[in-house]
Amino acid sequence: MTARRIAVVGATGAVGREFLRLLQARGVPAEDLMLLASARSAGTTVEYGGRPAPVHALEGASFAACALAFFSAGASVSRAHAQRAVQAGALVVDNSSAFRLDPSVPLVIPEINPAALGAHRGLLAVANCTTVLLAMAVHPLRRLSRVRRIVASTYQAVSGAGARAIDELRRQSEAWLRNEPARPEVFPHPIGFNLIPQVDVFDEGGFTREEWKLVRETRKLFDDPELAVSATCVRVPVFRAHSVSAYVETAEPVSAGAARAALAAAPGVLLRDRPERAEYPHPLDATGRMEVLVGRVRSDPFEPRGLHLFLSGDQLLKGAAGLALQLADQALGPVGRSDCNAGGA
Amino acid sequence: MTARRIAVVGATGAVGREFLRLLQARGVPAEDLMLLASARSAGTTVEYGGRPAPVHALEGASFAACALAFFSAGASVSRAHAQRAVQAGALVVDNSSAFRLDPSVPLVIPEINPAALGAHRGLLAVANCTTVLLAMAVHPLRRLSRVRRIVASTYQAVSGAGARAIDELRRQSEAWLRNEPARPEVFPHPIGFNLIPQVDVFDEGGFTREEWKLVRETRKLFDDPELAVSATCVRVPVFRAHSVSAYVETAEPVSAGAARAALAAAPGVLLRDRPERAEYPHPLDATGRMEVLVGRVRSDPFEPRGLHLFLSGDQLLKGAAGLALQLADQALGPVGRSDCNAGGA
Repeated sequence: MTARRIAVVGATGAVGREFLRLLQARGVPAEDLMLLASARSAGTTVEYGGRPAPVHALEGASFAACALAFFSAGASVSRAHAQRAVQAGALVVDNSSAFRLDPSVPLVIPEINPAALGAHRGLLAVANCTTVLLAMAVHPLRRLSRVRRIVASTYQAVSGAGARAIDELRRQSEAWLRNEPARPEVFPHPIGFNLIPQVDVFDEGGFTREEWKLVRETRKLFDDPELAVSATCVRVPVFRAHSVSAYVETAEPVSAGAARAALAAAPGVLLRDRPERAEYPHPLDATGRMEVLVGRVRSDPFEPRGLHLFLSGDQLLKGAAGLALQLADQALGPVGRSDCNAGGA
Repeated sequence: MTARRIAVVGATGAVGREFLRLLQARGVPAEDLMLLASARSAGTTVEYGGRPAPVHALEGASFAACALAFFSAGASVSRAHAQRAVQAGALVVDNSSAFRLDPSVPLVIPEINPAALGAHRGLLAVANCTTVLLAMAVHPLRRLSRVRRIVASTYQAVSGAGARAIDELRRQSEAWLRNEPARPEVFPHPIGFNLIPQVDVFDEGGFTREEWKLVRETRKLFDDPELAVSATCVRVPVFRAHSVSAYVETAEPVSAGAARAALAAAPGVLLRDRPERAEYPHPLDATGRMEVLVGRVRSDPFEPRGLHLFLSGDQLLKGAAGLALQLADQALGPVGRSDCNAGGA
């Protein structure tokens, strides 16, 4: 029998659930799924196609019947179990940071570096969500000039911190509106009607790990080890789309008009840039879309090689589950759209 | 009789109310106030000292008994009425943009350019709130090196758009949490659990007027017409403290340690920079404080003359009413803390 099942590791998480929504929309039958999670969540169910679908323990699960295994349960889970799935013959699409910088693992965004996909050895890495969205907006400018430097400030939705963080924003907002105290559990400070200028843990030089991901993963995606990316990552009280304010410095001057034309022509990007109509990206407009919205494109008034832009993108879709499925489609053929659901093994 | 009354123009607005709260805390009696507003609000009352205080029409009101007139009702109101108050002998402290760039009007922050205050001709301008907060955080670095350039992305609270905007965020958030539609009235898009990358109207080069204020007013405050400030101003679903993520480029390299020491020693600034304890500025911590909180101070990994920082400050206090009162204190003597409430005329 051909392996045709799709394993979803981290099926109860925010990204895992989004992945299931996408599979459901493609008509993948429940019996073709293998939903896995930590021992804590094993034995529970998640809703799939209007019915409860059982979640099993990852520990000891066999990937033998799987053509595809999607991992979204954190780097330590991927490090412990992903190779097991590869060895069982599944294509692993890993949403964690475990293998992203491994030179033998392709870090791919189809609109940016599709050729890198061919080199895979059974494992593909999905880049950090903020990195994906920023790279999608900056890559089209690289056709006009080499990009030397990016200074980015982010506005990151709580979905990036998982399902419990989404609940926390809701709970704290409700409490605040009732004049009740909003005790933080997931985040170090309240996020309801507040901001937290910390995403992930602090690392070298006072930058967070998230801020370093933007440096290292963008360099790998662009195959440009010299690119300078300096970021400040900030959590905002938004549910699921991330935004970035970016200053982009190119080697040669690029006009705002040329930049806009390049963005308008770029696959996976929607130019939203008619300020006179209050048209520019914002998270609610980006929510539910695979495209990254880019606008507020303008030349720096003082630096002829400087451009500014603002982008919003659905963190759970293009930034995670949607991109993972896009990668599986490229590697295996359209998932859920052929007889063999994961495109055959 | 010596003029001793304090006129508050725009008494029903978000900044006007904050100004009244400050006067009340200083024990200024209600009979020393003259509360003025547009014809629309005239005849209403605002709460002062636990009692309703009447609001009168600005049109036709006499400033003859006033030692101090605080204007916060927009630039057109200030243009129409501020000179009238000056001619009547009041010191006008204007919170609007009407006179900020007028060379004959001092634009002052006492911690930055106190000497400029002496030159006033009866009128002092309060800088744009975001500009004040950013200038407070950057000025201490100027003792270490000339600052050549600032790239700023802002996270601006709805209070900056006035009392109706505060109501709109509350109303839309409640609606969203009940799964009801959130219709925008004050802002062009929903602000509840969303962001809007537009503050004020669009102007030259695709930058908003708010973004240009950061250029021109910071230059005047620092007396440095060459300073480059490139900003992206974004409204966030926060009630009353603004934040800014700033990249600061100096003429000579400045270490993060030296920058931190300068900030720690700066009056009006509170250094909040112990990431290992999750200590950094955030809006809820800044709310209700006159000090600007600064943290996340770090050297750019690629540009030796580059520093990054994040700041939060109370937009209604240091960014508006609190600074206005501070200016009046400097010009007239402590308001509400002497026999003559506005320090005498």
